[in-house]
Amino acid sequence: MYSPSAFPRAFRKFSLSPLDRSLAAQLQQKIDRKTKPLGALGRLEALALQLGLIQQSLSPRIANPHMLVCAGDHGAARAGVSAFPQEVTWQMVENFLAGGAAINVLAKQAGMKLVVADAGVAHDFGHRVGLVSARVGAGGTANYLEGAAMSEAECAEAMDNGARLAREFAASGCNLVGFGEMGIGNTASASLITHCITGLPLADCVGRGTGLDDAGLERKRALLARALSAWPERPLINRLPLGRGNAGKESPGLRPAGDDALRVLARFGGFEIAMLAGAMLAGAKARMTLLIDGFIVTGALLVAAQLSPAILDYCVYAHCSNETGHRLQLDWLGGKPLLDLGLRLGEGTGAALALPLLTAACAIMNEMASFESAGVSGKA
Amino acid sequence: MYSPSAFPRAFRKFSLSPLDRSLAAQLQQKIDRKTKPLGALGRLEALALQLGLIQQSLSPRIANPHMLVCAGDHGAARAGVSAFPQEVTWQMVENFLAGGAAINVLAKQAGMKLVVADAGVAHDFGHRVGLVSARVGAGGTANYLEGAAMSEAECAEAMDNGARLAREFAASGCNLVGFGEMGIGNTASASLITHCITGLPLADCVGRGTGLDDAGLERKRALLARALSAWPERPLINRLPLGRGNAGKESPGLRPAGDDALRVLARFGGFEIAMLAGAMLAGAKARMTLLIDGFIVTGALLVAAQLSPAILDYCVYAHCSNETGHRLQLDWLGGKPLLDLGLRLGEGTGAALALPLLTAACAIMNEMASFESAGVSGKA
Repeated sequence: MYSPSAFPRAFRKFSLSPLDRSLAAQLQQKIDRKTKPLGALGRLEALALQLGLIQQSLSPRIANPHMLVCAGDHGAARAGVSAFPQEVTWQMVENFLAGGAAINVLAKQAGMKLVVADAGVAHDFGHRVGLVSARVGAGGTANYLEGAAMSEAECAEAMDNGARLAREFAASGCNLVGFGEMGIGNTASASLITHCITGLPLADCVGRGTGLDDAGLERKRALLARALSAWPERPLINRLPLGRGNAGKESPGLRPAGDDALRVLARFGGFEIAMLAGAMLAGAKARMTLLIDGFIVTGALLVAAQLSPAILDYCVYAHCSNETGHRLQLDWLGGKPLLDLGLRLGEGTGAALALPLLTAACAIMNEMASFESAGVSGKA
Repeated sequence: MYSPSAFPRAFRKFSLSPLDRSLAAQLQQKIDRKTKPLGALGRLEALALQLGLIQQSLSPRIANPHMLVCAGDHGAARAGVSAFPQEVTWQMVENFLAGGAAINVLAKQAGMKLVVADAGVAHDFGHRVGLVSARVGAGGTANYLEGAAMSEAECAEAMDNGARLAREFAASGCNLVGFGEMGIGNTASASLITHCITGLPLADCVGRGTGLDDAGLERKRALLARALSAWPERPLINRLPLGRGNAGKESPGLRPAGDDALRVLARFGGFEIAMLAGAMLAGAKARMTLLIDGFIVTGALLVAAQLSPAILDYCVYAHCSNETGHRLQLDWLGGKPLLDLGLRLGEGTGAALALPLLTAACAIMNEMASFESAGVSGKA
């Protein structure tokens, strides 16, 4: 079952223990004594419980939340997998730096510190205030229609870059990271990764991205089918839904498919996706809550979860995107999104929009009265 | 079709013109030029458009948002329609005044000014800082199992009280009001109103409220069926879904059923529900956005929309509650909720949780760059 490891170091480094659930009963009791009918705050209550477990605290709080947006270019973009030209990647990075993109506006509103990282964009930004240089490769990945998008060493380097940043966030007192991305062509990349890891039909995993028309969508599907055929030795990974309930448990659907997942990531990934996967794993290791955005970010999580399924305990699914395949990913992971607003922008916008719900869940725990403290009668 | 008016003054006073949509094209153009794929911000874009139309501005903003929580007691509560004893109404009002309830926590987090009104609670609060005294009747409504819950004069008075408060909010520079309520027994009241106005089967309109068990739910259903039979002369109102698309238009489903709706409100309503309906109508008249919470608040809106269907143009549906019947109400109104988090607490909690999404929609309009201003290439 377990193929010889090509990434033994990465695999070991990122292994996570399942969440310690010993506080669960006390947390639930605290929630149940708040002045409200039992369960009446719905998913906010489940969130409060999860945050309490992640933080191992009866009074969970969101501290110094960060939004990490990783940008990278894709060799396959020039083959026509996107509605937008490749230079939009660097132009949008400039837009992030100038404060004009949607994620600037929404991260600011949510009180998140926005960190933009160049994971490997086909552009020389020079030294720029506010841009984390974490470049791997020479101007974007190679075209996976012709070979691997990145070498195994590059893949490990990009993951390490993400992990290092996540550790820095934790060291600064941050306990929650939202994840976002920018990269023309990266829905295509995420589609291939999703197909290879989940075994869902490729066509179901491919969507319109930034807005392909019907002909563009057909072309994208055909190109991605070619990309698969061009890699006949591709591994077959976990084809049983992982499901949150399975995380950290032995189940027929779980096997140590980490190396295979990394091979898929190296073949089809973007540097920004590898960087995100590394940041997620290190983030969970540092006991931070991971606020998962849309299709591409969830693609990175699919890889990370193959390395260490316990990561799912640390994930909050911010929203369900309009990009075809995101709901399939979420279902496969057993993840229930908080928002469903028809977003399909990426950048971490859905994650920023969901943060107030997490803050609310914490506020309920910390500020709301109990039946006893408020002198309110219980159920008749 | 039009029955002799018992409430001619209320009906005339609250009539609203449909929203002026002449800015729609300019608003849409501004949205479409933002640096994002067309439509990629999903429902946030529709919200931005709606807020722009309500405010007649290309730069909509949320100003001085208020959360109005109206509390009232129900004569029928003593007949056993709730899982909680009636004194919880005043105890929860005390909890609001002490700052310990969920709505205190969530309104504070959302930056909303919380206004708590005694619409007619069976308790003497005396003069209390922070409590708006808008009492109608002598300690709660009468029991609708035996007669009308309130007289027509009391109903009009409660609506006037709400309208006056909404006008005060507007005069203070507020342009958005969230609505919440507290009143043991008021889901029962909202169920009867919903049944009478929409024609949906009574059983579908009745839910567990604060947490009735199966036997309690059966008892509640039976009691409410008796309440209907006890009023054989009840009017049959609009049985065609109103639908947002119909608001302000002539359609087979629309007729001036305002008086009938007010008769239903007086028969089964709570003072808090009547107060909310009046506040909504005056709020829309003052061009404020109405942030609609759960089942009871939507019950008040059902009445208000019969008086003036154009009110729906001013409504944002914050969430879909877990209380049976709320989704039916929303579907009937053609309202699409922003959140679906399994909440069933009332108090306006869903509305407070949704406000950040409206603020985000405004921020997108006011702070985000356009393709031109940011120098980002368009679609290839």
